Amino acid sequence: MEFEAMSCDELSAYLRSVPGVYALLNEPAELDIAEVGDGNLNYVYFASNTKAPEKSVVVKQAPPFLRLVGKSWPLTRHRMEREVAALRRFGALCPQHVPRVYHADNERFLMVMQRLSSHRILRQGLMDGVVYPKLAGHLSTYLAHTLFFGSDLYLAPDVKKQAVSAATNSELCKITEDLVFTYPFEDHPSNAYSPAFSRAEIERLWRSPALRVAVGEMKWSFMNDAQTLLHGDLHTGSIMVNEDETYVIDPEFAFYGPMGFDIGAVLANLLLAYFSRDWHDRDKRANGELPYRDWLLEQATQIWTGFADQFVALWREHESRRKSHFIGDDRSGACEQAFRTRFMQRLFAASLGFAGCKMIRRIVGMAKVADVTSIADDALRASVEVRALRCAERLLVERHAIAGIGDVVALAREIHATRYAQT
Amino acid sequence: MEFEAMSCDELSAYLRSVPGVYALLNEPAELDIAEVGDGNLNYVYFASNTKAPEKSVVVKQAPPFLRLVGKSWPLTRHRMEREVAALRRFGALCPQHVPRVYHADNERFLMVMQRLSSHRILRQGLMDGVVYPKLAGHLSTYLAHTLFFGSDLYLAPDVKKQAVSAATNSELCKITEDLVFTYPFEDHPSNAYSPAFSRAEIERLWRSPALRVAVGEMKWSFMNDAQTLLHGDLHTGSIMVNEDETYVIDPEFAFYGPMGFDIGAVLANLLLAYFSRDWHDRDKRANGELPYRDWLLEQATQIWTGFADQFVALWREHESRRKSHFIGDDRSGACEQAFRTRFMQRLFAASLGFAGCKMIRRIVGMAKVADVTSIADDALRASVEVRALRCAERLLVERHAIAGIGDVVALAREIHATRYAQT
Repeated sequence: MEFEAMSCDELSAYLRSVPGVYALLNEPAELDIAEVGDGNLNYVYFASNTKAPEKSVVVKQAPPFLRLVGKSWPLTRHRMEREVAALRRFGALCPQHVPRVYHADNERFLMVMQRLSSHRILRQGLMDGVVYPKLAGHLSTYLAHTLFFGSDLYLAPDVKKQAVSAATNSELCKITEDLVFTYPFEDHPSNAYSPAFSRAEIERLWRSPALRVAVGEMKWSFMNDAQTLLHGDLHTGSIMVNEDETYVIDPEFAFYGPMGFDIGAVLANLLLAYFSRDWHDRDKRANGELPYRDWLLEQATQIWTGFADQFVALWREHESRRKSHFIGDDRSGACEQAFRTRFMQRLFAASLGFAGCKMIRRIVGMAKVADVTSIADDALRASVEVRALRCAERLLVERHAIAGIGDVVALAREIHATRYAQT
Repeated sequence: MEFEAMSCDELSAYLRSVPGVYALLNEPAELDIAEVGDGNLNYVYFASNTKAPEKSVVVKQAPPFLRLVGKSWPLTRHRMEREVAALRRFGALCPQHVPRVYHADNERFLMVMQRLSSHRILRQGLMDGVVYPKLAGHLSTYLAHTLFFGSDLYLAPDVKKQAVSAATNSELCKITEDLVFTYPFEDHPSNAYSPAFSRAEIERLWRSPALRVAVGEMKWSFMNDAQTLLHGDLHTGSIMVNEDETYVIDPEFAFYGPMGFDIGAVLANLLLAYFSRDWHDRDKRANGELPYRDWLLEQATQIWTGFADQFVALWREHESRRKSHFIGDDRSGACEQAFRTRFMQRLFAASLGFAGCKMIRRIVGMAKVADVTSIADDALRASVEVRALRCAERLLVERHAIAGIGDVVALAREIHATRYAQT
């Protein structure tokens, strides 16, 4: 049977038939339904009690195709089960940063979840230059908890191996394998280049052995390193914020993968936001306050350092409670510390590598980011794009040599200050 | 119900009741059954037609415990299903090096397989100083084919992810995680030290941050890097040989793990054989021929180089047939080559790291190797053990700096020529 999105009446009747949801909406006689999805994958609705609009939920339904492309790109509807499972798992680990799932229907591939009505998509907030004072603290907490508690550093090995199998998400991983790690480096029809973007920059991506090797290594890691349950698509469009709260949404790409992939997604999107300030700050006068672009880099710094501190603290506490270390007993006291240091260095390098891949795909691949696509001046947009690409390339190629997040910030500033030839 | 090993009569009646096996044994009126298992895990029998002893099969049955330890170490009998699946998969890839499975019984956790009656365990052959002229060629072929065809370099990503899940082998992986990567570095009751082995060497293992960090990284890789279907226990006791043929047996530890683990196991056991020549060659006079210890190092060299050449050739052929590369299209021609080179460098380093772990566990851990335990002179045995440990440590700590297999051979010779203080 051909898939048809539910009509508002059908959805309304359905929601009223689910006792838990019906109660939550205050037993509405009538519901206002609005389709609001602007995502790439799914249909998304707000359903509100007509008489008490503050009683409202989000409904998300997965059609049997990639919504961005349409029926010509079929996609398993079972992705909804992955998303529900991930939301529940992440919600158990980090309830303050993950929307609650009220109801999941595995036959309709639909779920009903918490409406975040006073929050907006972080990407939009960043484009508007809004400062979120708690953002870095929240995201570092979310990352530390979700990445640590899914891993072999915490879980018993058999439980972790079961979790790996249960989280297999081949079709959505394939999208990432293709759209992030492969197509951007090919003359692929799904790629899209902005009007003033130079051909030389495309050739540069295709023909640099050092870059292609680094991207190949990140792809291999993405496909093989089943380290923890990842969100899998943690860009600034998957984060909802207000002054006080931060929520991470849309984990349909969740699977067991390398920790650096989620961290890299956050860093990549902050860096894209940073380079695109040339446009979004065009009417701003310097006024003595910290310029917004500096605030963005400060967030990258605080997110990495906050994440690393909390991750290591969780790890220490767990091992001290359990009275054993991942590496085994350590009579010297120096070995487990040295292992943690090395582990975090490697994780940092991987995060930079993934950040580079994510930045590149957003510039030359199919799925763009509004920070950049909203730049109306073609030449300016191209110059932002080139800087983002050069930054991505350096992150990838130099990831093992970059000593810390301070060096990433310095690199971003250096590239921002450089004028690249437009050929 | 308590497990009881089958009696000879029961096994005989059972085998005659399986039509395929009965025919293979030439419809015997009577069978000679001999329990021959000296392995750590299972019961193993030869079953032969009494009137035609050349008609013979091997029967292997998994008791619900680790045979080496006994009922106090329970172990899933489903390991037999893993072993059967792995034998069939490896047999399909490399029929000339894998014994045929004639019959598998998932209720009795038993299988009937090809008897290799003119072959002996490689470890025994090496201890006796036998030269196997085809060994290196065969093992490098086996390694190249099994490691390549299970990986993302060959399989479609969804097929590979399914294979990862299907090969989950938590209980047997746990044995490796504990006995190879953890207990040897602890004051663990399962460890065993030879009589003259110095306390200082044990402390050295426990207290060296560089070594413990490297071992921790290999453990993390073992637990997380689901690269290909591994044999999982590829020491020289899992290989049967004669002048003309080489068979790899006993893959009950098979799971999706890092490629370097199987390669490292082979290298480790050749190095253990090398260092133990001080004992096994004790009555030999130099006679102008290549000393056996040099032949052993030559095998390590030929196995790595033969493996690497064949693996890269399989990879090239596959991508040339498929007209696409793992890294995506490569218009320059230089990028895919550079990626392969890097891939092989990293695989080499990982193989050395795993070799180091495998050598250490054989010296201080629970399960020893006869090459070393057969040394009747305690002081000589301890000196062999110390050399093996020092070599293992250097392989682990310097794995990223060691440029090629020639350097490993030089390192082994250097350590063999060094006199370590016995304290």
